[in-house]
Amino acid sequence: MVEKGLLIVLSGPSGVGKGTVRKEIFSQKNTSFEYSISMTTRSPRAGEVDGVDYFFKSREEFEALIEQGKLLEYAEFVGNYYGTPVDYVRETTLKGKDVFLEIEVEGAKQVREKFPDGLFIFLSPPSLSELKNRIVTRGTESEEIINNRMNVAREEIEMMHLYDYVVENDTVENACEKIKAIIVAEHCRRERVEPKYKKMLEVN
Amino acid sequence: MVEKGLLIVLSGPSGVGKGTVRKEIFSQKNTSFEYSISMTTRSPRAGEVDGVDYFFKSREEFEALIEQGKLLEYAEFVGNYYGTPVDYVRETTLKGKDVFLEIEVEGAKQVREKFPDGLFIFLSPPSLSELKNRIVTRGTESEEIINNRMNVAREEIEMMHLYDYVVENDTVENACEKIKAIIVAEHCRRERVEPKYKKMLEVN
Repeated sequence: MVEKGLLIVLSGPSGVGKGTVRKEIFSQKNTSFEYSISMTTRSPRAGEVDGVDYFFKSREEFEALIEQGKLLEYAEFVGNYYGTPVDYVRETTLKGKDVFLEIEVEGAKQVREKFPDGLFIFLSPPSLSELKNRIVTRGTESEEIINNRMNVAREEIEMMHLYDYVVENDTVENACEKIKAIIVAEHCRRERVEPKYKKMLEVN
Repeated sequence: MVEKGLLIVLSGPSGVGKGTVRKEIFSQKNTSFEYSISMTTRSPRAGEVDGVDYFFKSREEFEALIEQGKLLEYAEFVGNYYGTPVDYVRETTLKGKDVFLEIEVEGAKQVREKFPDGLFIFLSPPSLSELKNRIVTRGTESEEIINNRMNVAREEIEMMHLYDYVVENDTVENACEKIKAIIVAEHCRRERVEPKYKKMLEVN
């Protein structure tokens, strides 16, 4: 019997740096889990590659996949769809491998309902003002969009109670170290390893 | 308000290597927690130092401390008392520092009853036969004592359900890494950090 892999969900407010943290984690050699690439209808940003950062789809294609039940979760966010293809997640965890999702908070809520045993990590800004600074620094958004995002962020921080862990993104390095520690720790949880030991006692 | 420190309890069967793992953890520079030295009535082994490895006490002294309620936990094990002075643990966690205990399983059971919020880590042998090898290799015990210890170990592994985490002591390095990861992860648990974020939302 293969032990089922973990479903690891990294989420948090828009602009907090989920993508940067996820990329740093996967750039390191000693990661043992698989990244599940999201699907989106938004346009690629400079440097983003289809099939690496996201699967970029048209609105029509995305809505067809929703109807076919092919998405584990999806959300409309600032006028675009984001979602996670379900087959990949199911097949990979059944093979005993951990799957890592980096998704928006609305999507994480849907996954929590379907996979309550998942490992839900909330990436949080060191402070709300810090969050605002980061969005402004990115320099591509109007003040109205920034204010809207700030309100969304307040709501999202209030959604923290749906998560198992909260990791402050003070630096990318610290956040990565904590996330990796959480995954190691979660594999040591007694409920996960006890059956193996019970079997050992029977054999000896 | 200072956030209360964690009470971290490392335990596991006799001979599994709790002391070696604990020493390795505390020999590393980046430990942020305090080690609570146990008290015992057993004789020091070669190289063990009073006040470093244990506080070595006579049976009479130990029993007097039990009567005065000065022990968080104590147990009689293979004819000797082992115990944890309570004042140090209480004062250190109230100051916001984590305290690390390395104790026998009977003692861990008592601590769990008194500090249910503690972080309980069970150090387990890779297999029972491996446990036996280690006790034989130590080479100082009769066959009768070894067999008794094996029976005790079976019982102790069955006590695993009282723990939050199980760490296999396959190598000292792996076990230390996992224990440190568990402590990092535990500090990120949502129940522990949520109040801080709720406060941040009020202020902004």
